[in-house]
Amino acid sequence: MLASTSIKNLLRNVAKLVSISWEDENSLKNYFTEKRLLRKQFLLQADETCRHDNYVVSGSLRAFYVDKDGDEHTLQLAIDDYWITDLNSLMNETASSIYIQALEPSEVLQIESKNLNILFAERPVFERFFRLLHQRAYIAQTNRILNNIALNGHERYRQFADNFPEFVRRIPQKFLASYLGMTPVFLSQLQNSRKLR
Amino acid sequence: MLASTSIKNLLRNVAKLVSISWEDENSLKNYFTEKRLLRKQFLLQADETCRHDNYVVSGSLRAFYVDKDGDEHTLQLAIDDYWITDLNSLMNETASSIYIQALEPSEVLQIESKNLNILFAERPVFERFFRLLHQRAYIAQTNRILNNIALNGHERYRQFADNFPEFVRRIPQKFLASYLGMTPVFLSQLQNSRKLR
Repeated sequence: MLASTSIKNLLRNVAKLVSISWEDENSLKNYFTEKRLLRKQFLLQADETCRHDNYVVSGSLRAFYVDKDGDEHTLQLAIDDYWITDLNSLMNETASSIYIQALEPSEVLQIESKNLNILFAERPVFERFFRLLHQRAYIAQTNRILNNIALNGHERYRQFADNFPEFVRRIPQKFLASYLGMTPVFLSQLQNSRKLR
Repeated sequence: MLASTSIKNLLRNVAKLVSISWEDENSLKNYFTEKRLLRKQFLLQADETCRHDNYVVSGSLRAFYVDKDGDEHTLQLAIDDYWITDLNSLMNETASSIYIQALEPSEVLQIESKNLNILFAERPVFERFFRLLHQRAYIAQTNRILNNIALNGHERYRQFADNFPEFVRRIPQKFLASYLGMTPVFLSQLQNSRKLR
């Protein structure tokens, strides 16, 4: 049984992009399950096949890649009301090359890939919802590539902080720096020079 | 009136991801128009609002960003049977920050964003098709970011050449190098050392 506040958040998230009926709501409730994560607990590890898409009810998570030298590269960040998964592994049923870890005690609502397909068949409005969700994710990813080319570190941080102040407040500086492609020392200098203005 | 071979290609492309009925086919035909581009002609220029999604029937195109110093950065490449657009500008009706240019004489089938929405409403199977298309684009984009972190230039080129031999054959080396984030000289060295193996 899903907690009513968690499902309310999910429904509000869905309603931002599509209008859904009472029947759509009921179908949705059937296919999501709740999962709680401790701080630092993993939702996915490299070499596993990702089986779920995840809506974050509360907490914060990061997706990262570990390179040959053991260095971690943050690929994705998620807080309350964001979605996080390894879409490649989920859709193609291949071993994941990334980790997804909770940064705070977190609660997510999960849907299994097979149930996602049943949901699409039963309730086509969710096809639309996930089309719009993927579209936005693609646009965000493209903008990230573009910003890495077009903006210097200072401009990149400023744009991120203006668009996602809640991430800056909650995500530890080293992961934020890794996400923005800069060293933690450089990020800290940017933040200090910002406070002085 | 669309050329029957062009529309046949589009239908074959769609059928790779979804099954469509006779009625779906007819709807699709109604909303696409043909556009021919000369070599070097622009499909989109920076500061314009992108109005179409484009299926490439034949030819080749590249999307690129021009930085403050006037340097061009190749973001996307498309040949026969690929799609190309500025999804951000198209979906959010904002001014584009990129150019899309034909590298060879090209033919594309275009659908206007407003007709795309009508098509989704009339024929929900295309909602699914574009969900899958965006999903794949997102996965490709994420893999590109991951490859830039995980692979050196030599490995990145090898992976690209193995997966997309037709692009290597047809796209001029300087654009390929720009797409792969390396200098044309370095790419040419990689290709020569490859031929010797």
